[in-house]
Amino acid sequence: MGEKINIGNNVFVYPMPVTLVGTQVEGRVNFMTVGWILRVNENPPYIGIGINKNHYTARGILENGGFSVNFPSADMVEKTDYCGIVSGRKEDKSKLFDVFYGKFEAAPMIKECPLNLECGLVETMEFPTNYLFVGEILAAYSEEQYLTGGRLDIEKMKPLLLTMPDNSYWTVGDYKGAAWKTGLSLKDKKGTEEEKN
Amino acid sequence: MGEKINIGNNVFVYPMPVTLVGTQVEGRVNFMTVGWILRVNENPPYIGIGINKNHYTARGILENGGFSVNFPSADMVEKTDYCGIVSGRKEDKSKLFDVFYGKFEAAPMIKECPLNLECGLVETMEFPTNYLFVGEILAAYSEEQYLTGGRLDIEKMKPLLLTMPDNSYWTVGDYKGAAWKTGLSLKDKKGTEEEKN
Repeated sequence: MGEKINIGNNVFVYPMPVTLVGTQVEGRVNFMTVGWILRVNENPPYIGIGINKNHYTARGILENGGFSVNFPSADMVEKTDYCGIVSGRKEDKSKLFDVFYGKFEAAPMIKECPLNLECGLVETMEFPTNYLFVGEILAAYSEEQYLTGGRLDIEKMKPLLLTMPDNSYWTVGDYKGAAWKTGLSLKDKKGTEEEKN
Repeated sequence: MGEKINIGNNVFVYPMPVTLVGTQVEGRVNFMTVGWILRVNENPPYIGIGINKNHYTARGILENGGFSVNFPSADMVEKTDYCGIVSGRKEDKSKLFDVFYGKFEAAPMIKECPLNLECGLVETMEFPTNYLFVGEILAAYSEEQYLTGGRLDIEKMKPLLLTMPDNSYWTVGDYKGAAWKTGLSLKDKKGTEEEKN
């Protein structure tokens, strides 16, 4: 192994998922590219999204108490990136995609995306430069073509990944093993060794 | 395009990054696998991690006010998964990796991981079943072998991805374009069309 180097503190998550957050702002549908996102509570299912306070999308969420999270496929990279470049303040992004609705108007969703989450705002946290909006997932929508055995299949969804500050998009690669299972071999080995000693 | 199906509301982020969160719990170094993570503030740089309240790691963070976030490479999948299966309450995970420290003991880091973030606890948010721990990144550590032109290179880091509830690990795939750039072509096209019309 090499020597550890201190590389400063402005470091991002490697890699980030890429989503399009849908809102209504001043009565118009808007979409913004968001990579700062996590599942934040197990039960009920909450999603958290981090957004700079100046963004037009932040205004929409605060005004209407809801948002959608849409996962674009890799072949949507051009339109996805476009939604991260131009602000809804300056350009109308409402016609870029086919829009559909679930339970309420505050969460416009993108038909072309393999996965859509419809979220009701539960809590807004304010940090120095960003909001963290926490939404309860009210419903999620997909299509038969993205499921295998009734479950979402990432190899069919083909979502995008993002790295910063090199600002690059990536696809998902190969299957690397079963979670909560691959590590069991280590547990068994350890157990065996302990029994031997 | 097919018909949208309501697939319920217990849906996760596609995909999640895979990290190992390092803590000191009851005086012992511990590591836990965490996929619920986001960058939550731009300036200063804050990271948020979502952890079930019952986890041993949650106790360590609350006790000591700090934690580390370590990004394992794909060849560490077995040990990484092991840290998500066994609790530090029952098994000693302190000898699994080579541990090093930066500014303070509350954030033990893993030498084998291509990227380590040393975080000081800024805020703890309590949700029904989970905590969201928000930490300021005090420093980040890597090695020359994972950098290109002084910047972290994901193709050299080879991090892991996770999907739930199919519980699968994945690698990062192919480069798919430049962010804040790929979409400019659409902007130009739109501009040209508008000028024509």
